[in-house]
Amino acid sequence: MEELGVGSVLLTGCDGGLGLGLLKGLLEQHRPPQHIFAACLDPQGKAISEVALGNPSIMVLPLDVTDPNSIKAAVRKVQEKVGSAGLNLLINNAGTTRRSTLATETAENMTLVYTTNTIGPLQMSQAFLPLLKEAAEAEGQHEMSCSRAAIINISSILGSIEAGEAWEERQDICYRCSKAALNMLTKCLALEYGGRGILCVSVDPGCVTPPLGQGMGPVTMEESVQGVLRLLARLSGTSNGTFWDWRGQILPW
Amino acid sequence: MEELGVGSVLLTGCDGGLGLGLLKGLLEQHRPPQHIFAACLDPQGKAISEVALGNPSIMVLPLDVTDPNSIKAAVRKVQEKVGSAGLNLLINNAGTTRRSTLATETAENMTLVYTTNTIGPLQMSQAFLPLLKEAAEAEGQHEMSCSRAAIINISSILGSIEAGEAWEERQDICYRCSKAALNMLTKCLALEYGGRGILCVSVDPGCVTPPLGQGMGPVTMEESVQGVLRLLARLSGTSNGTFWDWRGQILPW
Repeated sequence: MEELGVGSVLLTGCDGGLGLGLLKGLLEQHRPPQHIFAACLDPQGKAISEVALGNPSIMVLPLDVTDPNSIKAAVRKVQEKVGSAGLNLLINNAGTTRRSTLATETAENMTLVYTTNTIGPLQMSQAFLPLLKEAAEAEGQHEMSCSRAAIINISSILGSIEAGEAWEERQDICYRCSKAALNMLTKCLALEYGGRGILCVSVDPGCVTPPLGQGMGPVTMEESVQGVLRLLARLSGTSNGTFWDWRGQILPW
Repeated sequence: MEELGVGSVLLTGCDGGLGLGLLKGLLEQHRPPQHIFAACLDPQGKAISEVALGNPSIMVLPLDVTDPNSIKAAVRKVQEKVGSAGLNLLINNAGTTRRSTLATETAENMTLVYTTNTIGPLQMSQAFLPLLKEAAEAEGQHEMSCSRAAIINISSILGSIEAGEAWEERQDICYRCSKAALNMLTKCLALEYGGRGILCVSVDPGCVTPPLGQGMGPVTMEESVQGVLRLLARLSGTSNGTFWDWRGQILPW
C-alpha cells in the first residue's frame, strides 16, 4: 500500500474523534512522521496523554484555533522543533457544530461555528505559511504532495452545496455553511499557495466524530482514517484546490 | 419581453447601488408590483427619497439585516400592508465587503461580512417565511415562480468555488467565503421551502455595486438590472436551489 512518508505533520483537534484516530493512524504507518504536532484544546486530556506517552515523535501542543495568541505560541514551538526543514503537512481538523434546523438556527450558532470551522483554518494557514514555504522549498522537492508541503482542510459532504446530503437527518445550517465556506477557503489557498509548491485540498472523512453527532452512514473510524491516509499519500499537483472523500473519490462543490 | 408581474416585493439594500437600480427597474416595468418594500439602512437617504417621492406603491422601510429587532419591525409593517395575500418575493440584496488578500485577511472582517452577507439573509428568510407561505398558498397558484413566492439571494460569481474568478484582481476572502456560504443557504432554503411552493435561487448580478469596489468587467448597472429582472421572470420549479448569472446562464457552485 502506498504510504504518506512525511517528515512533519501538525494535526489540530487531537482531543478525540477523528483527530485522535488520524494521529494513531499516522503512528501505525511503516514510516511514521519524524515529528507529529498533536494540537489539543486540552493537552492534559486522558486520551491524548495515553497516545503520546513514551512516544518521542509526538509533541502535544495546547491550541485553540480561534485564539491568535495560542496560534502564535504553537508556531514558535513547531519552529523550534523543525528548524529550517519547515512543516510539511498542516491538517486543519479541529471543528465544531451545533444541532439545528432551518427553523431553529441562530446568529450565535452561525458565528460560533464559522469562527472555529472557517476562520480557524484561515488563521492557522496564515500563521504556518512561513514554515510550509520552508518545507516546499527544501532541496530535492519538485512535485506537489502531502510529503512536500500541504494544507488539508477536513471538510464534510454536508459542505457540498451540490450534494445537499442527508437533509432529512441533519439540517445543521451553521455547520453546512461553515464547511461550504471552508471549501471556498481551500480554493483560495490553492490559488495563492499552489504557485509556491504548497498543495491545498478539502477532504470529507466520511465519519462524523463523536462530539458532532451520532455518525453518518456505515463508515467506521478505522475505514475513515485508513481511507484519508491513503488519499493523502496519492494527492498530487493535479489535485490542488479540489474536494475528495475518504474513498478517494472527488466530490462536487 | 417576459415580465415579472409580481404582487409584492421586499428588496433589501435599497440605499444605493444594485438595490436602488433593481428598485427603479421594478418601477419601470409595464406591470410594476402593487407593493414594493424598499428596505434601507437609512430610510431618509437622498437617493431612496427621490425614487420613493410621490410613488404610492413604494414603502421605504428602515432595516438592518443584522438586527433581529429591526427585522421583526419590518415584518410587522409588511404584514399590515399585504394582509392575507402574503409577500411574494423577498430579494436579499443587502451586502457588504472588505478589501483583503489572503495575507491581510482578519477574523474581524470575516465575521463582519459573514454576519451581513450570510446570517442576514438567513434571519430575513426565517422571519418572512410566514408571509411567503401565505403567498405560496394563495388561491390559483400552482407553479413555482417569483410571482408566486420566492427568495432570491444576491450572490456573486466570486462566491463560485468552482470558478475561482478574478483571483488576481480581488482576493477578498471574507467576501468569497460569505457568498459561498450564502449559496449553501440558498440550497438549504430550497430543500426545506421548495416543498411549500417557495422558490429559492442565488443570483450573480454581474456588477459590483459602488460601495463594494470599482466594478467587475464591462457590465453596466442597466444591463445587470434588466438581466436580473428578465431572469427572475423566467425562473420556475426546475430552477429551485440553483445559481444563475444576470445573463440567464446557470453557474457552478
